[in-house]
Amino acid sequence: MSGCTHPAHQHCSFCDSKGHLTVEVDGNGDPHIDDPAPKDPSRRGLLKGSIAAGLGTLGAGLVGSSVARAADGTMQTRSHYFIPASADTVHWGYFSKSLKPQVEISSGDFVTIETLTHHAGDDYDRMIKGDPGAESVFHWDKKKKGVNRRGAGPMDASLFGRGAGEGLGVHICTGPVYVKGAEEGDVLEVRIVDVAPRPSANPAYKGKSFGVNAAAWWGFHYKDLITEPKNREVITIYEIDAGLDRNWAQAVYNFQWTPQTDPFGVVHKTIDYPGVIVDHATVKENHGVLKNVRVPVRPHFGVAGVAPKEADMVDSIPPSYTGGNIDNWRIGKGATMYYPVAVKGALFSVGDPHAGQGDSELCGTAIECSLTGTFQFILHKKADLAGTPLDKLEYPLLETQDEWVIHGFSFANYLAELGDKAQSDIYAKSSVDLALRDAFRKSRTFLMDTQGLSEDEAISLLSVGVDFAVTQVVDGNWGVHAVIRKALFSGGSL
Amino acid sequence: MSGCTHPAHQHCSFCDSKGHLTVEVDGNGDPHIDDPAPKDPSRRGLLKGSIAAGLGTLGAGLVGSSVARAADGTMQTRSHYFIPASADTVHWGYFSKSLKPQVEISSGDFVTIETLTHHAGDDYDRMIKGDPGAESVFHWDKKKKGVNRRGAGPMDASLFGRGAGEGLGVHICTGPVYVKGAEEGDVLEVRIVDVAPRPSANPAYKGKSFGVNAAAWWGFHYKDLITEPKNREVITIYEIDAGLDRNWAQAVYNFQWTPQTDPFGVVHKTIDYPGVIVDHATVKENHGVLKNVRVPVRPHFGVAGVAPKEADMVDSIPPSYTGGNIDNWRIGKGATMYYPVAVKGALFSVGDPHAGQGDSELCGTAIECSLTGTFQFILHKKADLAGTPLDKLEYPLLETQDEWVIHGFSFANYLAELGDKAQSDIYAKSSVDLALRDAFRKSRTFLMDTQGLSEDEAISLLSVGVDFAVTQVVDGNWGVHAVIRKALFSGGSL
Repeated sequence: MSGCTHPAHQHCSFCDSKGHLTVEVDGNGDPHIDDPAPKDPSRRGLLKGSIAAGLGTLGAGLVGSSVARAADGTMQTRSHYFIPASADTVHWGYFSKSLKPQVEISSGDFVTIETLTHHAGDDYDRMIKGDPGAESVFHWDKKKKGVNRRGAGPMDASLFGRGAGEGLGVHICTGPVYVKGAEEGDVLEVRIVDVAPRPSANPAYKGKSFGVNAAAWWGFHYKDLITEPKNREVITIYEIDAGLDRNWAQAVYNFQWTPQTDPFGVVHKTIDYPGVIVDHATVKENHGVLKNVRVPVRPHFGVAGVAPKEADMVDSIPPSYTGGNIDNWRIGKGATMYYPVAVKGALFSVGDPHAGQGDSELCGTAIECSLTGTFQFILHKKADLAGTPLDKLEYPLLETQDEWVIHGFSFANYLAELGDKAQSDIYAKSSVDLALRDAFRKSRTFLMDTQGLSEDEAISLLSVGVDFAVTQVVDGNWGVHAVIRKALFSGGSL
Repeated sequence: MSGCTHPAHQHCSFCDSKGHLTVEVDGNGDPHIDDPAPKDPSRRGLLKGSIAAGLGTLGAGLVGSSVARAADGTMQTRSHYFIPASADTVHWGYFSKSLKPQVEISSGDFVTIETLTHHAGDDYDRMIKGDPGAESVFHWDKKKKGVNRRGAGPMDASLFGRGAGEGLGVHICTGPVYVKGAEEGDVLEVRIVDVAPRPSANPAYKGKSFGVNAAAWWGFHYKDLITEPKNREVITIYEIDAGLDRNWAQAVYNFQWTPQTDPFGVVHKTIDYPGVIVDHATVKENHGVLKNVRVPVRPHFGVAGVAPKEADMVDSIPPSYTGGNIDNWRIGKGATMYYPVAVKGALFSVGDPHAGQGDSELCGTAIECSLTGTFQFILHKKADLAGTPLDKLEYPLLETQDEWVIHGFSFANYLAELGDKAQSDIYAKSSVDLALRDAFRKSRTFLMDTQGLSEDEAISLLSVGVDFAVTQVVDGNWGVHAVIRKALFSGGSL
């Protein structure tokens, strides 16, 4: 029983009110969540192997539980669940309040969730081959796809003929997680306890993970190229040390996208439908690109959030008040997200894993790389929020050890604001200016509500001590975030 | 003779090619530029006193010189000049290629330059009183102003009736510095060797410096207030430790702007003309605001740049390819700026000193606080630029120890792009989207030209490893900057 060093000590559930630990933690202050007292040791053994090998051969479910002291002093059971990524546990390209939960958990529980990048098909050998979970999701032959619906569009592909779901939404999302007792108006706190790259299952690439950067037609650069051929899409494959002993990613090769014919016979001239396996006989691999360039590894989840209430099938691309595709590289290990709950059970899903990204995600994607995350979920009931910083939270709020990060979007809740055609109109109406406007308004409210500042105090502080940056300009609903350092408020008597 | 530890060692002029120092440096690797071998000891003594007290009683001129080994191995004289801030040495609210230089220097020389904030009149007692330099600049009685022209507008105030120059441009700029041999097409490198706050000359505030944050009508927030009275302007006074022993600023009080009548009888209902001394009998000071809030001190120069060629009188507010009002808080001690020279002699001026600012400068201003800087100027002749990273440089480039920072604007060169009415139209046409576009294009070119990357390599790297942030949205020509970390390129064999 030693002192609590958890990064989020002020609301840590691993220690009692005096900072004494009630569960075992490692040197980083992280709980030993992968070693809970196993309820079913044989199953537990399987889980360990599964996580280590990234195999995903298990179904979703409980893998263990432990007892910890809650904030109110009572001892509570913390269960630990696991959701592998497989054709049975993912939904591809959309959020939906109608999805069947993968697990039902209680506040305080942990869930380890495997996520797969939807770009893995750009290098099947490195990112899918030999990995049963990935193979089941990406399976596609003349008769059948492992996951048929990809996107929120029509199943008969009557809009564009691309495929079921039309690729109106592209991210492979694992989940949802149903949080017992969660209702509209509550806030779901999601602590990202651990994040690890998914190792390549191909023995030729032992110890390595891989990621894809696609400079695609939806990128900010696309219509603004200076060299020929114009309107090209380029895939760059990056290598990441699976153990993260190296903190940088390195490019392996790149190639220009060529028309790809999927097993159903549809030709994809551009990257218009997710999960198409690239036939490398049709592309020219350029090795030695970005030689000696070290890209910072910033593992994080591009998509993470709860189901919106406004529509049943919601394209996974535009982020919104319920989170989703925020694409902020700070949403990684040690970070905590707070989401406004919109539907019963919250229905949290996560996907679009990234090994690294810059603020703006300029060319359309990050280093898209499969990751496994462990999350703890804390439910804050609406009735308990009055007078707390989470009262009336209307947007996805990020907290790290040193910062609060306020997410602004061109439209704070585009589904509600843009009417019936919101899901198509959002792609035409976004701007960084609008996102900055939203980030300003939310940050002002945050400072007034959580720090008790007047509007004048808040506005002065935002100008002299808060940094605004471009989150992304490629996700339909563009983003600007404000970084509010906690050290700003360190002058008080503690 | 010890090893060179200068932050910019790769192009340090204080050491020879083997890293042996040829001039004395302190523990930070900074040269003892305030102790050059004095040519005129009596004058040198005056300078020391002047700098220490922030008095500015001297005229501009040479104060000393020393000998150092240049890159080519020859021994060269480095002269050290001083430009105090006074009514005779500043130009208020504009850049101009017609200005008479304050000093004429050679490449390699140092200049210590006092700068005054144009907001000092918001608290005369703390920021002007007892300071001869500031008093001479801000002098304004019924008959005469210390500096009559303030802005690039008409001297007869026939446009708006605000005053001479009409406040079309607001920054008190010290200079210009004429660099011998500089011509259009050259690049002027300006190293910021030291920056120090100007101490209050009022004995009641010994050891303290003060700054002003004005939440003004040109701010991003102004038409978007939620509390009454709407359309208010608010001044917040901040205190800074003049010795910088404390690395934070703290608010002292704020007040709402009231109509101010200047000595010529013009009533300023809003902050529409710089240098109006606020009559504190007309305002209500609210003390205890932002209690316990510590704002990071980031001393820097909001305005620094060379004279443009496109027009004779250029409003100091919109930044452009020649620099000017970039308002990036990274332009402080240890930073190096590179400017494209547009006119003979370059004509470098500096002003708009800030004690701190956030990315976006949201409410219209930073912590506007008088500073004294010491700069070294290196002239790079056009003929020598081929094959170097500075070849064809078309914008103000910032280099710090760890980063290159690329400045994008809504219009890269608004004077050339917007035609005859550029100086008014720029205020209506800016957007963050356009500034991001410009920052993207410049960053791509930078990576291709200086790192030898292909366009595809550059675009991928910009998306996965470069962060884009909002510089400012309040200076007419809005800014977005890209931060390119040098560590990206650390994988090479050295």
